[in-house]
Amino acid sequence: MSSGGPPTIVSIAERAGVSIASVSRVLNGLGARPETEDRVRRAATELGYVPNAVARSLKGGHTRQLTFAVPDIGNPVYVAMVREIQAVAKAAGYRLLLHSTDADVAEELGVVRSLADRTSDGLVLVPIRITPEHVEALTAAPGPVVVIGSLPDGVPVDAVQADSVTGAALAVHHLVQAGRRRIAFVNGPVDTVPGGNRARGYRGALAACGLPYDPGLVTATDFGVGAGARAVARLLDARPGLDAVFCANDQLAIGAVQALHARGWRIPEDAAVAGMDDSDLAVAAWPPLTSVDLGAGERGRRAARMLLERLGPGDGEPVPARRTTAAPRLVVRGSTSPGAAPAGSDEQEGARSA
Amino acid sequence: MSSGGPPTIVSIAERAGVSIASVSRVLNGLGARPETEDRVRRAATELGYVPNAVARSLKGGHTRQLTFAVPDIGNPVYVAMVREIQAVAKAAGYRLLLHSTDADVAEELGVVRSLADRTSDGLVLVPIRITPEHVEALTAAPGPVVVIGSLPDGVPVDAVQADSVTGAALAVHHLVQAGRRRIAFVNGPVDTVPGGNRARGYRGALAACGLPYDPGLVTATDFGVGAGARAVARLLDARPGLDAVFCANDQLAIGAVQALHARGWRIPEDAAVAGMDDSDLAVAAWPPLTSVDLGAGERGRRAARMLLERLGPGDGEPVPARRTTAAPRLVVRGSTSPGAAPAGSDEQEGARSA
Repeated sequence: MSSGGPPTIVSIAERAGVSIASVSRVLNGLGARPETEDRVRRAATELGYVPNAVARSLKGGHTRQLTFAVPDIGNPVYVAMVREIQAVAKAAGYRLLLHSTDADVAEELGVVRSLADRTSDGLVLVPIRITPEHVEALTAAPGPVVVIGSLPDGVPVDAVQADSVTGAALAVHHLVQAGRRRIAFVNGPVDTVPGGNRARGYRGALAACGLPYDPGLVTATDFGVGAGARAVARLLDARPGLDAVFCANDQLAIGAVQALHARGWRIPEDAAVAGMDDSDLAVAAWPPLTSVDLGAGERGRRAARMLLERLGPGDGEPVPARRTTAAPRLVVRGSTSPGAAPAGSDEQEGARSA
Repeated sequence: MSSGGPPTIVSIAERAGVSIASVSRVLNGLGARPETEDRVRRAATELGYVPNAVARSLKGGHTRQLTFAVPDIGNPVYVAMVREIQAVAKAAGYRLLLHSTDADVAEELGVVRSLADRTSDGLVLVPIRITPEHVEALTAAPGPVVVIGSLPDGVPVDAVQADSVTGAALAVHHLVQAGRRRIAFVNGPVDTVPGGNRARGYRGALAACGLPYDPGLVTATDFGVGAGARAVARLLDARPGLDAVFCANDQLAIGAVQALHARGWRIPEDAAVAGMDDSDLAVAAWPPLTSVDLGAGERGRRAARMLLERLGPGDGEPVPARRTTAAPRLVVRGSTSPGAAPAGSDEQEGARSA
């Protein structure tokens, strides 16, 4: 029996009385006869063998790690995604690397290119926007990538999209059905794909309902509660006859609720308020906030599963890049519907309709 | 020149016309003369050499990865921690592995023991509670660990604590100063260290203010908005004369706000409400919620820095296990103080006092 120095595959094979190939199969999790497996594991334990995940990954050519890269880890939408991605990864035996790109385009591109370092086996990326450089980097990605966002058709990378056009239209139709006719719209930054889509959904739904488009009822601002409150205060000065406010996310909607409360308006009697994302914040508001669920958790779950499919053995046939879209749904609560979701009901989930 | 197969340290040395040792030094980031470095990098690029982070970590004995393990990734307190830990890790050139233990003690212990796998260089762990098995596993930890939570003195591991006794007392003193005398307390699960500490803080502050302890004003429930609303509805039946509700976290406090609104009570005129954690939810409530900031982000930042110190070269002297405590501070908003933090003010930060 060999001795001195850390245990090796050779010394374990000697002690177990099996072939070196058998030890390799067992330690790499490739299976062996139960009796062989037993003897190898016992010998390894007796010799104080510590499996080295890094060494294993080097030999196996994979790290059992996935990377999830997002602009801002604290955003509730990305928190919902990371939660689901982590659960899917964990169930499949993968660890999750979390990378905050701080909404920096160069850093997003760097994360894609760094797949060449083989620090992780694949990447789920939420880009802040898609530039020509993104298309180039994704096309040349040195490993599997799934994008959560909208990609041009030609890019050979899987993508999971939200449908914020339909989502915005759902909210506007609901407000019109509730008898509202002068529906203001507070958008986030408009130079983004979601910003443009939400504006299209708002405008399209107004047209479909036969309501005029009044530019004086529309404003855009940075995301944030304070920004939303200030924007709505200005809208109330300019259009004191408005009877509803639809906001591009829940933070803006909470700002709207606060601006209305501050002026003594009753919600929803004097003005109804609806947000978007259906984040945890929606239930914290008073009245609890009607919001459009764009399926953040669902998008995370799908993206993780698509990535794992890319990492699986497959059947040898190349799989073309896939596009999938999570369907939005409207969650109705007290901010648009008096009497919806009484306090103390189970988590104030509210009535759900799509 | 060698050819065929992937480039190796030998083929790069041949092409660059330098020694194999020089190539090794350059590729492992150990420095060399600028001219040598240039030649090696050019040769490596020309041969299509892809640096392999896993291989590098294997040789260097470190992974440049840290693990952060928490009971629940979606909890706003842990989100605040992960945000800060990620920023500190990134600035120091480390990647962050995120591990959700799903509040499972066996899994927490497994994360500590898995440091032996050398998947990451160190661990920041938020345990759900400290069992004798935790003490044992942490004492025998095969790599550096920093715990966010309270550890017994003898455990040779760094720990960053919250001071929820003082935090709870801050809230109660504030309510008493605002003229409240019948202050209810809605605690979370009491079989946890924070649950016990908050109860002690509440009781101690009442005594310090000369107010009686009324067990009928105290209740405990699961965390969650719905649970908080139901608990406060029951309290209002049993003690209709209460004039304030202090809650062990912001979700419970938002439930309290909803239960009071549902009965037509004015906040803070009829009853003031204060929460704990000062999460994003506090600003979403109406009125915005007074809350005790227990320094979640600060604890995350400190833990990450302490871990990096353990990973640094040091001066050869062993550093004993350290204990540090983040000071709580009270953030006063409209739920206890009429007129505090008008809507539209910068993010409704509210007045801060410690």
